[in-house]
Amino acid sequence: MASPGSGFWSFGSEDGSGDSENPGTARAWCQVAQKFTGGIGNKLCALLYGDAEKPAESGGSQPPRAACTCDQKPCSCSKVDVNYAFLHATDLLPACDGERPTLAFLQDVMNILLQYVVKSFDRSTKVIDFHYPNELLQEYNWELADQPQNLEEILMHCQTTLKYAIKTGHPRYFNQLSTGLDMVGLAADWLTSTANTNMFTYEIAPVFVLLEYVTLKKMREIIGWPGGSGDGIFSPGGAISNMYAMMIARFKMFPEVKEKGMAAVPRLIAFTSEHSHFSLKKGAAALGIGTDSVILIKCDERGKMIPSDLERRILEAKQKGFVPFLVSATAGTTVYGAFDPLLAVADICKKYKIWMHVDAAWGGGLLMSRKHKWKLSGVERANSVTWNPHKMMGVPLQCSALLVREEGLMQNCNQMHASYLFQQDKHYDLSYDTGDKALQCGRHVDVFKLWLMWRAKGTTGFEAHVDKCLELAEYLYNIIKNREGYEMVFDGKPQHTNVCFWYIPPSLRTLEDNEERMSRLSKVAPVIKARMMEYGTTMVSYQPLGDKVNFFRMVISNPAATHQDIDFLIEEIERLGQDL
Amino acid sequence: MASPGSGFWSFGSEDGSGDSENPGTARAWCQVAQKFTGGIGNKLCALLYGDAEKPAESGGSQPPRAACTCDQKPCSCSKVDVNYAFLHATDLLPACDGERPTLAFLQDVMNILLQYVVKSFDRSTKVIDFHYPNELLQEYNWELADQPQNLEEILMHCQTTLKYAIKTGHPRYFNQLSTGLDMVGLAADWLTSTANTNMFTYEIAPVFVLLEYVTLKKMREIIGWPGGSGDGIFSPGGAISNMYAMMIARFKMFPEVKEKGMAAVPRLIAFTSEHSHFSLKKGAAALGIGTDSVILIKCDERGKMIPSDLERRILEAKQKGFVPFLVSATAGTTVYGAFDPLLAVADICKKYKIWMHVDAAWGGGLLMSRKHKWKLSGVERANSVTWNPHKMMGVPLQCSALLVREEGLMQNCNQMHASYLFQQDKHYDLSYDTGDKALQCGRHVDVFKLWLMWRAKGTTGFEAHVDKCLELAEYLYNIIKNREGYEMVFDGKPQHTNVCFWYIPPSLRTLEDNEERMSRLSKVAPVIKARMMEYGTTMVSYQPLGDKVNFFRMVISNPAATHQDIDFLIEEIERLGQDL
Repeated sequence: MASPGSGFWSFGSEDGSGDSENPGTARAWCQVAQKFTGGIGNKLCALLYGDAEKPAESGGSQPPRAACTCDQKPCSCSKVDVNYAFLHATDLLPACDGERPTLAFLQDVMNILLQYVVKSFDRSTKVIDFHYPNELLQEYNWELADQPQNLEEILMHCQTTLKYAIKTGHPRYFNQLSTGLDMVGLAADWLTSTANTNMFTYEIAPVFVLLEYVTLKKMREIIGWPGGSGDGIFSPGGAISNMYAMMIARFKMFPEVKEKGMAAVPRLIAFTSEHSHFSLKKGAAALGIGTDSVILIKCDERGKMIPSDLERRILEAKQKGFVPFLVSATAGTTVYGAFDPLLAVADICKKYKIWMHVDAAWGGGLLMSRKHKWKLSGVERANSVTWNPHKMMGVPLQCSALLVREEGLMQNCNQMHASYLFQQDKHYDLSYDTGDKALQCGRHVDVFKLWLMWRAKGTTGFEAHVDKCLELAEYLYNIIKNREGYEMVFDGKPQHTNVCFWYIPPSLRTLEDNEERMSRLSKVAPVIKARMMEYGTTMVSYQPLGDKVNFFRMVISNPAATHQDIDFLIEEIERLGQDL
Repeated sequence: MASPGSGFWSFGSEDGSGDSENPGTARAWCQVAQKFTGGIGNKLCALLYGDAEKPAESGGSQPPRAACTCDQKPCSCSKVDVNYAFLHATDLLPACDGERPTLAFLQDVMNILLQYVVKSFDRSTKVIDFHYPNELLQEYNWELADQPQNLEEILMHCQTTLKYAIKTGHPRYFNQLSTGLDMVGLAADWLTSTANTNMFTYEIAPVFVLLEYVTLKKMREIIGWPGGSGDGIFSPGGAISNMYAMMIARFKMFPEVKEKGMAAVPRLIAFTSEHSHFSLKKGAAALGIGTDSVILIKCDERGKMIPSDLERRILEAKQKGFVPFLVSATAGTTVYGAFDPLLAVADICKKYKIWMHVDAAWGGGLLMSRKHKWKLSGVERANSVTWNPHKMMGVPLQCSALLVREEGLMQNCNQMHASYLFQQDKHYDLSYDTGDKALQCGRHVDVFKLWLMWRAKGTTGFEAHVDKCLELAEYLYNIIKNREGYEMVFDGKPQHTNVCFWYIPPSLRTLEDNEERMSRLSKVAPVIKARMMEYGTTMVSYQPLGDKVNFFRMVISNPAATHQDIDFLIEEIERLGQDL
């Protein structure tokens, strides 16, 4: 096991120069320790100078603690002299006399978190302090042991973990569809952790169950279902939300599938575009439908599903005697940010009586914007919608909603009447015990952060965020569309915040458009990305798609990003890629 | 919309006597306001007396704030004079000059949370301040609006939400298998929220991915798989973990099911006991296997699966030409806490070449105890195990692991090779990009709280917790087994912490054991439970099971519970039930 010191001494020293091999004198160490925050430095120095004669190994006897003289209740006075080296988890609440060390400990954790939050938004800090897996595994001992560690070590683990974490709130973090760190959302997530409960019954989550009811209804209103009627659930991510939609569509058409399984129903076929999310295939594999029964419909050059191809493939399936049961249109594809033509898809679904699902995991946020919601016109005709507030709306991970137009279907599809949870003789209105419509039993509370953010920002606040991100994407597009060294993956203004492009290093600019150039171009984005991570200056995603070799996919959902950050990204790509 | 006042003025006033109809003078209100914590009272009074002339509606101009003179960086000085009534989410980071209000706001949220934590462990506070759904809906306006609310209102919502929350860490909360509030786990969950990332790639969650690797390996070692080899994942709850097991077992036997669906395979049959968790049936319904294909094996009077009945039903299924593909034995049933005879089940699974799954969601924690782990003897022969540290090990919700003995199977079963996430030309070891073995795409970070708790408690700390809870259950059993007015649902010492019993009110004690008595007895537990919730003194679950009418199911996983709390529970049941 690494000595506590080896992890400890290099904290806070940004250049990692802490020397774990040769600790030197207490004085020298104490100077290093003073770089630490959260009061640990002082405590450590006190230990080194004064208490060093009483090492933690010498037994459980704790040194007397200075009395706190503040009159706050609860006292979270940071001046309380708590020596974490002598404290263990067993000294915290619910231990007798555990209140004071608990409050001090949690406050010190909080100080570490607050410092991380502030640094996250500081452009002079790295987005990531990247280390290869084997480096991290060798540098620290992460193993789990029989014996407890003291709270000083626990606080250090918190520091280490954050030292190597990616700063997902950093203004120059563009790597995923979910970026940014919302302060109200964060506060709400802390509260959720503190409440530490489960969504299955009103009995144990009264407020959260009501807030889920209110929030899902509001989301359905925004989708455009009359009076916000219908059903829904917060599920653990968009992939599961899409799987729910598939399950419910199947159950609506063949309710006997619940008892009899797929053997009792004809071969079912789902349709989605070739640019759609891979979770549709994952869901089909899981549900016993099989990936071969997911037909990928062709897209136009902008990544939108071609309705005539959809209709052709539906007819083809029917001719073979198969049963089309679901069309999943995408509102905001993962790579291109494309919006399938929902009205045309709705017409086809209506004509052939097929369940229309809209995977708006990424694009749903645009419904909050009066300027951009037209891109989802027709979503009101869907039977179900996946909408992830943890993406474009900046809600902390995770927060994904599945909305269903027909009420009661989810319950009928999933309920198993577990009598130990959903007792029928409870003293309150049982319609608030929503757990039996879920595939999960225990379900994490994902609603509170969205609800609290919504109260804090208002619908107009989400709108402003969405509009700003789309404006930034257009700004990026306008800069690079005619700039030397860039090629757009598709023409035209982005519909979402996805901007897809190749950076062409000078050495490739004069080459003919042949296989060799493609091969060399395919290596450019990975190398630039690797360099970005090693410098830690910014992060953006890349991937190949179809016959297109590796290109950058820039997405902007980060509320911290500004025009200057977009400028920085371009300069950084050029700085890191010009020699390739 | 409710005026901010209507929610505001009744906070902190425990009796709810705040009068929202007639606000009266500033002086009177200020007295009420002084009951609030987190410094809100003072801020409010300042507003009422000094700043009342500048209502929030008058525009965005903020009053000048007093400069902070502390030299901490970041400054989280609670003395900073921040007037939340004039601040909105848009004033927080990443806003320009957002650092000071952000730190003050997050610190005040933290003060609210710390106060809640301290109260959670205080036996003189209620476990729940219960209100019926319609009451809560009428008393507050929870609706979502176009316009933002100020941060003062946001802090109030935090207070209100916690006021009506159930204190799941309260020493007298016994309602679910997951109880208690671990301080290190809580700190870790706050950190997880702050890191706000996703588990799919090493790229964006380097430390968490490594910790998941280390922790799952340790759990497999404890299960008894050689060298801790195998595979696994943290999934969103035990139901999903069980569903994974079913999927993987099916894939192992018929890999073509992934592409071809259930139509391409024979009828598959799963076996589990009649006392098993309902998620097995939920999973079978979802996976297209169908609930009819889940055969419920008979249990003995203690709730343990009878191996001879299992073998009989396997043979029966085979005779019909069906294919037995999975036996799910339960280690710790939900109601009785029974452990199926895993060695006998393993022998049968081996004989008939059937995948053996052990649902140890509830009982897995006993593997940490040298004294009790024998109850899971044979678990090392399983092909897969569900183990929820958020239950018996007291990890905050949620934290559920599925462990699989054969490496690579999960990946083959679930992978879809999404090129935008799992690029094959990344610069680090791709084996750490574990996202493609999940059914989810984005996956919440559930490992850190378990890992940090494990470091803080050591395996021996979990052992002590488990042993203590089992000792408390035995204490309860010993008290009530011969006490007047109690009948045990099954004989013998509990194997887990589940103690199942009827309380017989005096009026029923002399009745003959006939239908009328059963009918009256069935109403006793629901009434006592309803009264418990209305008084808010304690909470324990009840349910019917098979031909047994409503009985109490006491479970103890709460680290705060003591012998006195067990005594209290008995006294409270008698106090609330003696007139029935």
